[in-house]
Amino acid sequence: MPHIDLPPLPGIAALLAGHPQTAGPLNALAEALLRGPSPLPPAQREAIAAYVSRRNECTFCAETHGAVARRLAGGEVETDGRLGALLEIAEKVRVDGRSVTADDIGEARAAGADDRAIHDTVLIAAAFAMFNRYVDGLATLTPDDPAHYEMHARHLAESGYQ
Amino acid sequence: MPHIDLPPLPGIAALLAGHPQTAGPLNALAEALLRGPSPLPPAQREAIAAYVSRRNECTFCAETHGAVARRLAGGEVETDGRLGALLEIAEKVRVDGRSVTADDIGEARAAGADDRAIHDTVLIAAAFAMFNRYVDGLATLTPDDPAHYEMHARHLAESGYQ
Repeated sequence: MPHIDLPPLPGIAALLAGHPQTAGPLNALAEALLRGPSPLPPAQREAIAAYVSRRNECTFCAETHGAVARRLAGGEVETDGRLGALLEIAEKVRVDGRSVTADDIGEARAAGADDRAIHDTVLIAAAFAMFNRYVDGLATLTPDDPAHYEMHARHLAESGYQ
Repeated sequence: MPHIDLPPLPGIAALLAGHPQTAGPLNALAEALLRGPSPLPPAQREAIAAYVSRRNECTFCAETHGAVARRLAGGEVETDGRLGALLEIAEKVRVDGRSVTADDIGEARAAGADDRAIHDTVLIAAAFAMFNRYVDGLATLTPDDPAHYEMHARHLAESGYQ
């Protein structure tokens, strides 16, 4: 049961519906980060969001963004060299932003990441540090049925976050 | 030196100037959370932001929001019973959203916090999990001079985040 009174919706949907004053900026941030212009295709950005959420053990976010990533990629997202190096940076940001080193950045550049790809990776990892804590800190509902996530992912893959 | 090419500005100012596509939603989120309607006065919300940033050892954010809180309060922010209980929740969210218990929420309610105060506290703590990682994950510049933070805080106290 959620810690506060919320509409009977799962995960962040309850928070966005119950608290519209912050829903606008949060949806706009997700749209810019995961769908806006970037050298990283949306499926890879969703895969970074799912990876960070899985490592933070936020089941709602991990299942949702994992399903969106697979839907956008038409299957599992392939981890090429650039995405692999960026996932290592995302994991460091997840734990502590200060732990990212110049060597980590150098490895991502050697694998083909430019400044914008590095920026977007750091901010996606940081944003899911927020979304995961928001969803779990208020104990929102986590559906068990995989069909829920597939349905939600179809909507997000087709229509985005706004 | 920052990990990516950025305008020569300190902390998050460099990121907002260099990456306007995400600056809009990030500023709108800060404005809604720290200045919009809430049962918590802005000085207390800034104090929660400063507390979380200090615990995350993000010097730029801790110094900035600490100075804004003092300016809005006309001195140090007094930690009454309600704010004390909310800071305990903020600390748990900072570490792991899943660690917030029904007892923590009950103690905050007993100290006078309503659902909206609890919501706003959790989202402020979660948002600074993001802002701290964004600022430190890209190794932005941290001024040493306290006068920088006082000047920046005066602007934020007077004009907000948008």
